[in-house]
Amino acid sequence: MSKTSTIEADKKTVSLDALYSLIQHDLKRVDALILERVKNEVPLIGDVARHIIISGGKRIRPALTLISAQLCHYEGHRHIALAAAIEFIHTATLLHDDVVDESTLRRGLATANEVFGNKASVLVGDFLLGQAFQLMASDGSQAALKILSDAAAVISKGEVMQLMTEGQPETTIENYLQVISSKTAVLFAAACELGATIAGKGRHEDALREFGIYIGIAFQLVDDALDYAADSKTMGKNTGDDFQEGKITLPVILAYNAGSREERVFWIRTLGELQQTPNDFEEALLFMRKYGAIEQTIAMAERYCHKARLCLSDFNNSKAKSAMLDIVDFCIHRAY
Amino acid sequence: MSKTSTIEADKKTVSLDALYSLIQHDLKRVDALILERVKNEVPLIGDVARHIIISGGKRIRPALTLISAQLCHYEGHRHIALAAAIEFIHTATLLHDDVVDESTLRRGLATANEVFGNKASVLVGDFLLGQAFQLMASDGSQAALKILSDAAAVISKGEVMQLMTEGQPETTIENYLQVISSKTAVLFAAACELGATIAGKGRHEDALREFGIYIGIAFQLVDDALDYAADSKTMGKNTGDDFQEGKITLPVILAYNAGSREERVFWIRTLGELQQTPNDFEEALLFMRKYGAIEQTIAMAERYCHKARLCLSDFNNSKAKSAMLDIVDFCIHRAY
Repeated sequence: MSKTSTIEADKKTVSLDALYSLIQHDLKRVDALILERVKNEVPLIGDVARHIIISGGKRIRPALTLISAQLCHYEGHRHIALAAAIEFIHTATLLHDDVVDESTLRRGLATANEVFGNKASVLVGDFLLGQAFQLMASDGSQAALKILSDAAAVISKGEVMQLMTEGQPETTIENYLQVISSKTAVLFAAACELGATIAGKGRHEDALREFGIYIGIAFQLVDDALDYAADSKTMGKNTGDDFQEGKITLPVILAYNAGSREERVFWIRTLGELQQTPNDFEEALLFMRKYGAIEQTIAMAERYCHKARLCLSDFNNSKAKSAMLDIVDFCIHRAY
Repeated sequence: MSKTSTIEADKKTVSLDALYSLIQHDLKRVDALILERVKNEVPLIGDVARHIIISGGKRIRPALTLISAQLCHYEGHRHIALAAAIEFIHTATLLHDDVVDESTLRRGLATANEVFGNKASVLVGDFLLGQAFQLMASDGSQAALKILSDAAAVISKGEVMQLMTEGQPETTIENYLQVISSKTAVLFAAACELGATIAGKGRHEDALREFGIYIGIAFQLVDDALDYAADSKTMGKNTGDDFQEGKITLPVILAYNAGSREERVFWIRTLGELQQTPNDFEEALLFMRKYGAIEQTIAMAERYCHKARLCLSDFNNSKAKSAMLDIVDFCIHRAY
């Protein structure tokens, strides 16, 4: 049985229906606020922003803020603007990422840089960041502002760190984990922590921040695994993109570390020097299967999910808690 | 007498020595804070940031915050971090601008995107924005935060607006002024207003904000004139860059508006369609001289400088006020 079919055998249906029914009303308000903010006198901004914001995605980050607020029995309105700020930061990152990666496809649609050009993507990304900070500023809470501005600073640091590992398959697992913690997990963490912060539940802040870090790491690990495993039709993401760009992710690091001398030469040629021939991606998949690199990556994601579940152990059972546990499962099983 | 030599005849030496001697100590603290913030565990961030921050520039924006604070008799320490935040926002904008413009030279040095690549410029720009927001967040003042986050949002809107006018010589003067107010003058305005805000001199906020807007507009008008007039050896900016990029600035709008049918065809071909031959820039300069486009641009800058001076009329005479009036002169005469 091939390794890929092993993953298939683990297939599990994970529904986020319970989550979305709990936050449905709030999420509509978040979307309305986002739309209002991009409905701008400059048409290009609206076009680009709508293209990327409206075109899909599960709104997983703002959802985390909304459900964390519910978990902490928050009853005000501040979670709406802060969840919108989180989504704006995320969207700005996507726009800049796609410029940096020269991607052409995201969520099955042409990326904004493909449609509107790199210039528009860079500048509209900046505009969305500006919106995020205006929302944070008008929230007026020093604590929330610190959480979000720290997150924004760490994310960009993570992105630069990732750029520096590009083409270097000898990157350590520790270094890779630091990159994905920074570029991905920190925003998940901020999204979750904010729920406790605005509810005035300081004692839950650490637990929710850690919960966010762990599911963020798991989310990115699975994302990186999918780049070598997903069916591009169902996922709307170009399988093989990471390979093409020389991006160093855990599956690569594992295959490189376990690989023979010849195999290492292969990885250095294809990812380090970006000298790729049409069959190289298939060859890369073969090496990964040989060492179970994808399974090991998913297994690591599962360990982080386990840690995430433990972070919720101090919370009483509630619909919100149950929905957050669904998110944990979703991080692993969203793909297959 | 050619129009260019008319400008030469207006040559005037403007010294900012008095300004820098007044803020010398503060500016050193700003520089130290900036360096401390970019002295990062990620070498690339430090390299790119140092390249662009240390490589020169007159620190005119942070200087405005420092001198405005002095003008308002501010005696605390908050102006240091806020001036650094202003410079970080400015530097981030430069990095992203150079990517967008595909520039290769700034202040006589290779641009960061030329040295480190577009990816690094986009991401380090984001990092610097993150630093700016962390500094703003730790200042802890709602008012300062609002001034700076509003400025950041408007700047990126201005950049997008500019992108939309690219290649369109029929852009109106009004539209152009809106672009430069947003992309350039708003940060000058924020820099000046902050001085009054932190000094608790609410009654001076409007005057200093307007002062900043006017000198910001004048500064950009002169910048745009220099692109068709400056000696690249002395300025360290590639004369003709704007032309090459199809950027629509006041000199172009004036020459286009005054131009014959054939001349308009020339502008549409060279800037609208970017179909340029080696002699086109010389031809463009000829058309500009024919209609006095550069002189008219400088004359408009002078009118804004006049407005700026009036904004300071409610302030008693002081060394700080005198230094700010020097800055006004500098905006016009920095180049010739």
